[in-house]
Amino acid sequence: ALAAAREDEEEKELRQRFMAPPVSGLRELRRRRRELRSRMELLIMETQAEVCRALAALDPGASFAVDSWERKEGGGGISCVLQDGEVFEKAGVNVSVVSGHLSEEAARQMRSRGKSLRAKDGKLPFCAMGVSSVIHPKNPHVPTMHFNYRYFEIEEADGTIQWWFGGGTDLTPTYLNEEDAVHFHKTLKEACDKHDLKLYPKYKKWCDDYFYIKHRGERRGIGGIFFDDMDSPSKEEVFQFVKSCAKAVVPCYIPIVKKHCHDPFTPEEKLWQQLRRGRYVEFNLLYDRGTKFGLLTPGSRIESILMSLPLTARWEYMHNPPESSKEAEILEVLRNPKDWVH
Amino acid sequence: ALAAAREDEEEKELRQRFMAPPVSGLRELRRRRRELRSRMELLIMETQAEVCRALAALDPGASFAVDSWERKEGGGGISCVLQDGEVFEKAGVNVSVVSGHLSEEAARQMRSRGKSLRAKDGKLPFCAMGVSSVIHPKNPHVPTMHFNYRYFEIEEADGTIQWWFGGGTDLTPTYLNEEDAVHFHKTLKEACDKHDLKLYPKYKKWCDDYFYIKHRGERRGIGGIFFDDMDSPSKEEVFQFVKSCAKAVVPCYIPIVKKHCHDPFTPEEKLWQQLRRGRYVEFNLLYDRGTKFGLLTPGSRIESILMSLPLTARWEYMHNPPESSKEAEILEVLRNPKDWVH
Repeated sequence: ALAAAREDEEEKELRQRFMAPPVSGLRELRRRRRELRSRMELLIMETQAEVCRALAALDPGASFAVDSWERKEGGGGISCVLQDGEVFEKAGVNVSVVSGHLSEEAARQMRSRGKSLRAKDGKLPFCAMGVSSVIHPKNPHVPTMHFNYRYFEIEEADGTIQWWFGGGTDLTPTYLNEEDAVHFHKTLKEACDKHDLKLYPKYKKWCDDYFYIKHRGERRGIGGIFFDDMDSPSKEEVFQFVKSCAKAVVPCYIPIVKKHCHDPFTPEEKLWQQLRRGRYVEFNLLYDRGTKFGLLTPGSRIESILMSLPLTARWEYMHNPPESSKEAEILEVLRNPKDWVH
Repeated sequence: ALAAAREDEEEKELRQRFMAPPVSGLRELRRRRRELRSRMELLIMETQAEVCRALAALDPGASFAVDSWERKEGGGGISCVLQDGEVFEKAGVNVSVVSGHLSEEAARQMRSRGKSLRAKDGKLPFCAMGVSSVIHPKNPHVPTMHFNYRYFEIEEADGTIQWWFGGGTDLTPTYLNEEDAVHFHKTLKEACDKHDLKLYPKYKKWCDDYFYIKHRGERRGIGGIFFDDMDSPSKEEVFQFVKSCAKAVVPCYIPIVKKHCHDPFTPEEKLWQQLRRGRYVEFNLLYDRGTKFGLLTPGSRIESILMSLPLTARWEYMHNPPESSKEAEILEVLRNPKDWVH
């Protein structure tokens, strides 16, 4: 009876806190609750639930489809997708907790710094977990938002464990709204400043550099923060920083959605949004390291990786918006990133 | 007066034969008319004009926009694009004739066999020319068609000139029509068989292998022919083979467009077409060597390279057509390529 009561309790807790039972199991996570892996897995599960609930509350007609999936080679994930809603065209929030062995090629893709990893027989035991999300709204006056927070461990031949965190949150508007840009960056800056005043400027710049569509000479969006290979000052401190960033997702984005989701728009504005979606696809398929890493990882779940692609996109030959139009205004900012917070 | 008359004559000839004056100039091409470079440039110009005229004849409301462009580093091209017509959503036929110096990285991307090239100071003088085209029709019962015929020369440090041809023609239907598939492959086979009976089977297989969307486990389309690095038996013989292939483009595709461009279709069939367009984008941005090479080449014309992308595309999370539907039928063929000609 006691065991049954405890199971009921756990069941209740799961329903309240998460979108689905965690990959590693709630009991296992409790058992090793002091380990950083467990705390990170709980954080990404909570972030997934928080974001999904905040989005669903804005799109009452639609709801998130929740898929739990297993990876044959080890681990699994939970994908939550809302498609073709009133407010959101496609909103995906994905958690994955995978482990196994990496090829040296895949390990190279993982690290942005070319840190050498000493493999045993070319294979590296690893564990990777993260929450990753792309939100594509319908209304061209509501920007697309992306975030991802992740943690890696790789075991080298001599038993040394290399660990690091990565992540970021960034905004891709179809049209520029300065007030929104400032709110978004300010909220991220506040999350960073609690930990170290150097973080926001550094990661803001990294974001502008990372989301660069080289062949177009423009950025994917108006940035935010981005970091990778973060392994200092200490595991605990980096975790606390990542937690602050993850908690900032809802406050930096949701107010912008609320403000604009009923804005009127013209067919021409919708068309410009579709062309910008095309650029989003170009970045994700040609340059994004996360997408490449995902597609290279054996047994990875393709549908969850490509969830980041918009429902619809458009490519027109030689489309050039007229000078001093609203379309030219956002292009200018994508070509020459601005400082939004001083 | 004589010079003026000759200029008039040339002007007339250009208008009749080509979409725009050739990159190397008609007089220069005449002067070195025996060189293979010149003959190939004339062939790609003629192919461009032939295909554009055949397509325009089927879409009377629309017409090709013709852009001649120059490449700062050497050479240029002519892009012909018909967008948002009655029959064609986007049809592009592009000629480029470029020369200059390649980085070793770009040279590596160019050759499918890893032939080593001895560079002087890391730079390789090269000349590349080709005609390349993607035709995306509106009606989901008319397949997308792609072709590309190209010629390369690279000069090594010791003055040796490496040359080779590449190319292919392939079909990407939204729905399978066996009669069309057989007509398409048979026409290509006939073009190949005139030169060597071994060519069609070899290049048919190469096409199935090349247009493989690895992460999906499916091919982009139902194939055709594809070859690269072709440098035997002789320059003249390979050129004659390439000429036969280029001449086969109109007869292998145009009858299929004529047959189906007025077929009735449902919104569901249009939707499936849009999802297949999404896969087309995935292949082109993630795997296509030509696209990668183009984006890597300094001073390359982005709009002409990405002309291959459809006007519109769609990605739905976890879209799986029901068993034994018409959508499942084409997927089966994309997963397990068939022999269309015996």
